[in-house]
Amino acid sequence: MALEIVESEGGVCFPTGFLVGAADAGIRKGDRDDLALIFSERPAAIAGVFTQNAFPAWSVVHGREVCARGAARAIVCNAGNANACTGEAGKMADLRMAQSAAGALNLSPDEVVTASTGVIGRAFPIEKAEAGIRQAAERLARSAEAGRASAVAIMTTDLVPKTAAVEVRTVRGTFRIGGIAKGSGMIAPNMATMLGFLTTDASIPSPILKNVLVGSCESSFNRISVDSDTSTNDLVYLLANGASGIEPTAEEFGPALDMVATSLAKQIARDGEGATKLVEVVVFGDSDHALSAARSIADSPLVKTALFGNDPNWGRIVMALGKSGARFDPLQVAISIAGFPVFRKGLPLDVDLDAVSQAMKAPEVVIEVSLDPGALDAVRFWTCDFSYDYVKINAEYTT
Amino acid sequence: MALEIVESEGGVCFPTGFLVGAADAGIRKGDRDDLALIFSERPAAIAGVFTQNAFPAWSVVHGREVCARGAARAIVCNAGNANACTGEAGKMADLRMAQSAAGALNLSPDEVVTASTGVIGRAFPIEKAEAGIRQAAERLARSAEAGRASAVAIMTTDLVPKTAAVEVRTVRGTFRIGGIAKGSGMIAPNMATMLGFLTTDASIPSPILKNVLVGSCESSFNRISVDSDTSTNDLVYLLANGASGIEPTAEEFGPALDMVATSLAKQIARDGEGATKLVEVVVFGDSDHALSAARSIADSPLVKTALFGNDPNWGRIVMALGKSGARFDPLQVAISIAGFPVFRKGLPLDVDLDAVSQAMKAPEVVIEVSLDPGALDAVRFWTCDFSYDYVKINAEYTT
Repeated sequence: MALEIVESEGGVCFPTGFLVGAADAGIRKGDRDDLALIFSERPAAIAGVFTQNAFPAWSVVHGREVCARGAARAIVCNAGNANACTGEAGKMADLRMAQSAAGALNLSPDEVVTASTGVIGRAFPIEKAEAGIRQAAERLARSAEAGRASAVAIMTTDLVPKTAAVEVRTVRGTFRIGGIAKGSGMIAPNMATMLGFLTTDASIPSPILKNVLVGSCESSFNRISVDSDTSTNDLVYLLANGASGIEPTAEEFGPALDMVATSLAKQIARDGEGATKLVEVVVFGDSDHALSAARSIADSPLVKTALFGNDPNWGRIVMALGKSGARFDPLQVAISIAGFPVFRKGLPLDVDLDAVSQAMKAPEVVIEVSLDPGALDAVRFWTCDFSYDYVKINAEYTT
Repeated sequence: MALEIVESEGGVCFPTGFLVGAADAGIRKGDRDDLALIFSERPAAIAGVFTQNAFPAWSVVHGREVCARGAARAIVCNAGNANACTGEAGKMADLRMAQSAAGALNLSPDEVVTASTGVIGRAFPIEKAEAGIRQAAERLARSAEAGRASAVAIMTTDLVPKTAAVEVRTVRGTFRIGGIAKGSGMIAPNMATMLGFLTTDASIPSPILKNVLVGSCESSFNRISVDSDTSTNDLVYLLANGASGIEPTAEEFGPALDMVATSLAKQIARDGEGATKLVEVVVFGDSDHALSAARSIADSPLVKTALFGNDPNWGRIVMALGKSGARFDPLQVAISIAGFPVFRKGLPLDVDLDAVSQAMKAPEVVIEVSLDPGALDAVRFWTCDFSYDYVKINAEYTT
């Protein structure tokens, strides 16, 4: 099978037939765009993955209904107000957001999904959102610049916009996948506070789209942890409009979507609140147990503060492993930090800890754990370190 | 049933027949006692509760064996080195600690349990420990001062020693319970990095002692959370020497032991690394679900940073509740912070958030959640806020 996947720019509007626009609706504090509109020029299939939080935001309730039908042509997203825990008034505001986008784009409201991120429980300023939607619709464009602007508009405490795009060249022709995401605080497995919007010009029927999206999220957005919290608003949408004329096989589409989703997930982890570095936790072993172990290490505040301090404190990795519930023989475990083997067969290795500490100052640090010397498969999990700024950002968020 | 429980001082040597001694063995950095010896003048029953970490320290392995036999007369504990992940040399060092205490106290090594806390994976300085044990044995005494000195000697990053004691007056006579504990970082449910040593002069057979201890730990030490980490070394011992001549009923002994254990647990939470306040999370509802909800709130870094910032951000409590896995009807949930109702029936209440913020500056803040308006029973959980100093302490711990 001849298959080539080439990274590119443009985010959600890299695939053919997608336009994006952004506007400053004045919902988020600060002088910056806070509303994004993503529009498919043709009918598209849609799939979504949603937060498991018991207090879902109105956008989540609404998005689940649209995705159950499987077709949509626009995503409208605001930052600054989560429209969660806002009662019937919030439900109405969410509906008006969809209606307003539908009006501006000449669609039915049924073809619009919404997303919101920001403070929970504040009355939603729907008039501001409506004005922003009209403005974003006027600015719809298809360019790397527009793609990036839409990624900026969905940011909250994110420091950098997150975009990814690939072109996939198959023997039958070329299709594209693009995406933007926001993350930062409250990110954790199972769709924590994060939004991801993915687009493709491949042609994929809606039921298949859902399966592919779930699979990709499982190995990307569900494998990141900034703190261990999860939010009321998290969701990922994938729109497939078929504009390329290509109907790819699962083998052609899956790895390319994984690449985009994993790139976005790593960008989110790297930009975790207060993060100074990206940490990749790689655990070799039986997949369920390896996943429990990786998550426990990536979630541990003690491991994450040690990473911030460039402290090769493998004892904390051992602690996190030991409390993970993963099944393994402690005498078979091996641990490396930043490429240095530090622990094997239940004992620390004789290693120059100053050299390890030096290597930990890199912008990307890999923690590698083997639960079993015979294991060939690894689970990957991404996280960031835990710094003073995490506390600062979150202690002062709404004050 | 006439029963009076009176709080007192003296910690582990408040009950009759217990002596304690402390010494500076030079294991922990800094000029402070770091080794404690607790001795019962008469034979005693012993029960223990131990960490569930898959990498137990040697003291845990050893303590489980002694507690399985059910009799012991001394506890020796050092701070500064956890003697975990130290291989056969560490096992031998732990055995020598017990032998050394047995020699100094004229006991069999089988009658001594050990406990260690500190850095994982460093060779254990057994000669220093042996010298410290000899010195602590020479200093054995029974006084409030000695009880407090032993609580100081087991501290690591703790800022204050933790002691508790009660006298229980029954119709058949009086017995006493005392205890010391250390905690601080890595504290979490299921015996996180904490040590607790409890003594009583009541007469209680060893099998009953274990049941009573497990029950008390469940509602005290297993209900605290500083971060969500758990350690290799955590344990709680309870020695009962019968010196009072009283064999209390379960109704007489249980509540008194609960009182001592809960007092120590709250002291640990209040003194969590970097903590500026004690937070009590009270959740009304069916006990299993209420416990999941309380733990999720108490463990959430976002809730804890908001508490540090005196930010009445009930949205984060809602988030933590929603991700907890507890079963409830979101429209029946009510939340109060520091005595102010802030959320009811899925909606925020009209409340003066500045007044709530002001009330949150108190040294103790209560978060009260009701999962069900009809629920009469509550689960209590204790935690602390999450400050800059938590990060500082843990980023710089071994460097």
